[in-house]
Amino acid sequence: MSLIVQKFGGSSVADAESIKRVAKRIVETRKAGNEVVVAVSAMGDTTDDLLDLAQQVTPIPSGRELDMLLTAGERISMALLAMAIRSMGVEARSYTGSQAGMITDAQHGKARIVDVTPGRIREALDQGAIAIVAGFQGFNRSTGDITTLGRGGSDTTAVALAAALDADLCEIYTDVDGIFTADPRVVPLAKKLDRITSEEMLELAAAGSKVLHIRAVEYARRHGVSLHVRSSFNNNPGTLVVNPKEGETVEEPIIAGVAGDLSEGKITVVGVPDKPGKAAQIFRVVAKTGANIDMIVQNVSAAATSLTDISFTLPKADGATVMQALEAERGDIQFAELQYDDQIGKLALVGAGMRTNAGVSAKLFTALFEAGINIEMISTSEIRISVVTRADTLNDALRVVHSAFDLDGDELAVVHAGTGR
Amino acid sequence: MSLIVQKFGGSSVADAESIKRVAKRIVETRKAGNEVVVAVSAMGDTTDDLLDLAQQVTPIPSGRELDMLLTAGERISMALLAMAIRSMGVEARSYTGSQAGMITDAQHGKARIVDVTPGRIREALDQGAIAIVAGFQGFNRSTGDITTLGRGGSDTTAVALAAALDADLCEIYTDVDGIFTADPRVVPLAKKLDRITSEEMLELAAAGSKVLHIRAVEYARRHGVSLHVRSSFNNNPGTLVVNPKEGETVEEPIIAGVAGDLSEGKITVVGVPDKPGKAAQIFRVVAKTGANIDMIVQNVSAAATSLTDISFTLPKADGATVMQALEAERGDIQFAELQYDDQIGKLALVGAGMRTNAGVSAKLFTALFEAGINIEMISTSEIRISVVTRADTLNDALRVVHSAFDLDGDELAVVHAGTGR
Repeated sequence: MSLIVQKFGGSSVADAESIKRVAKRIVETRKAGNEVVVAVSAMGDTTDDLLDLAQQVTPIPSGRELDMLLTAGERISMALLAMAIRSMGVEARSYTGSQAGMITDAQHGKARIVDVTPGRIREALDQGAIAIVAGFQGFNRSTGDITTLGRGGSDTTAVALAAALDADLCEIYTDVDGIFTADPRVVPLAKKLDRITSEEMLELAAAGSKVLHIRAVEYARRHGVSLHVRSSFNNNPGTLVVNPKEGETVEEPIIAGVAGDLSEGKITVVGVPDKPGKAAQIFRVVAKTGANIDMIVQNVSAAATSLTDISFTLPKADGATVMQALEAERGDIQFAELQYDDQIGKLALVGAGMRTNAGVSAKLFTALFEAGINIEMISTSEIRISVVTRADTLNDALRVVHSAFDLDGDELAVVHAGTGR
Repeated sequence: MSLIVQKFGGSSVADAESIKRVAKRIVETRKAGNEVVVAVSAMGDTTDDLLDLAQQVTPIPSGRELDMLLTAGERISMALLAMAIRSMGVEARSYTGSQAGMITDAQHGKARIVDVTPGRIREALDQGAIAIVAGFQGFNRSTGDITTLGRGGSDTTAVALAAALDADLCEIYTDVDGIFTADPRVVPLAKKLDRITSEEMLELAAAGSKVLHIRAVEYARRHGVSLHVRSSFNNNPGTLVVNPKEGETVEEPIIAGVAGDLSEGKITVVGVPDKPGKAAQIFRVVAKTGANIDMIVQNVSAAATSLTDISFTLPKADGATVMQALEAERGDIQFAELQYDDQIGKLALVGAGMRTNAGVSAKLFTALFEAGINIEMISTSEIRISVVTRADTLNDALRVVHSAFDLDGDELAVVHAGTGR
């Protein structure tokens, strides 16, 4: 008997009909002889509706109370899902994050899981029941307060339960068929991957792929949980996200996929004195704002002036805050000027095979050059190459690169409506 | 410093605007130097909407899961209310029934409170915060499951908290100005009572008055909690429900009020052998169905046949079940026939002063006789006289009796829109 954890997102349980459809799928997994634990998100737009309500009451709601409010969403979906399963003659019980033992730190709105004590879930399984667990939520032991895990929280709940229960597999049901070599809405010939390493998946998620949340992938990687990302709308096999063991030889394609991201902006600090410690000074200021910066490029100093320029990318949402923070330190840092550019696109090429294959960068730059696409910044990691282009050339760049690395499939990818959480 | 428990029903927190209005009221009570604990119901129609959702998923939802689902309602209203209060610069924290220590038995949908351990509420008060508690819900210690208290649950939550915290007063905010001598929608000259004993209030609630739930009144009476029933739409003083101490002499008006009830039906068991044990046999059958019967009348036996008729009233919702249960035992009980009548009205006259005032019954029967209203059943308790009439004469009966006992006020009562829960 295998233990399978299944995660269903908000679009998979948007109304009573979808809930019954998902219930049927869960019951089939149980009847195939598996123990089943389910992590479920709030129905459809419930979370946004609750956020709207909070905004109507106060523009700056308390974090503790906002978490209390939002966790009502999964409470509704999980109870309905458990009812639906029971109406099919199979025992099912729903559990809040707190009842399921999802213990977190006390950071409301973006709590991190510090421990999982799924005693009641194990007990339910031992009694032959399916356990339905509220995604996205936990509780803090010292305050006794309810917390939420932030974006991607339900994926993380599923993975954390799979790890704590030593599950054989964690299935992430979503509204796409799996992980693709590129976003099929942008690159119509994108192919579904049968298999990807968690390391590659991490880089793709960091580079803007939205199918799996980066936290969930990190958690799965750290705890050796195998993920199966698949569609809740059909029975096709999806993509396995695997954790090859140290030293295990895996036949890898050179490139797993290419991802694009239009959510970032670029700040350039112009005319910085080319002296030791200046970069550190700048990024201390940036770090204090809490902004998550990504690529950093420092120009070679112009010998005549001993001044240099430093550029970095960051989420557009943090742009104004960081600009203000830097401006306030202009006297100390002694730069000449600040420039902000929110019309950039970021392309990332990811593949574990890059490590042992020279020439990947050259091939990438050549493909972009031949398509007449200008590269503004470059940064590389062990299994990723990222470049910044103008925003309006990003989609062309994605298609060109996808072709250049022979990722194009033979047929158009099927794109489903809706987006998961 | 006084400790005040306030209860707000669903119609008082129906939308963001109402929540802000209620928050303002709570903050005023706090700023007047009181410690404040609030019990709140789900917003407006939330509970009914959740019940609808459950019905769409399955016609017979599991009790455990239905309670999990419904408790999402108060979670939403209490979090929003706490946010609204905090936005006014006053510390407030929301607590689920479980966090507030509302411990119940395991009867889902109609759990009884077995203990209240409000440690976290006391702590919040000691730290100067207002505690907002989810009405209507609790949890069972042995199963660890969430429960709901059933109809009138939020009133009961408020009273139970007031008792456990030894509060000075429990204010029940509703959409009417207080307790009236009769329902102002039926008897326009009904007067608001400044004061009523909990004993009288119990009888009025049992007789169909909907303002306070009978369970809450019983709990208040047993634990000596003083209630103040008042409107959330104005600042008028409402009605105090008091618990005079044993032997305390209170100047009581003879009659507190008159209540009408159209929700009951009548079953008559015709031609029962007039032998010892037959009534017991009938009511054992009825008790097994769980139906809550009220008035019972046994006719004087007709000497010629040694047969008698037994009639009793019960909620219409239980009518079919009880009729079937009795029919199934016809052979054993040996009655001739069963009759069911759902066109009855029940009028109850309540007053602690009845005990020491002879002639109340006579005055009641005379008033009804003079108005041409036929009395079909009569039953009396120490401080209540109930009569059954035809349903379509009940409202006339209420007005006639209200006048006959000099309860009419000088002006028309103000009737507000909406109904509380």
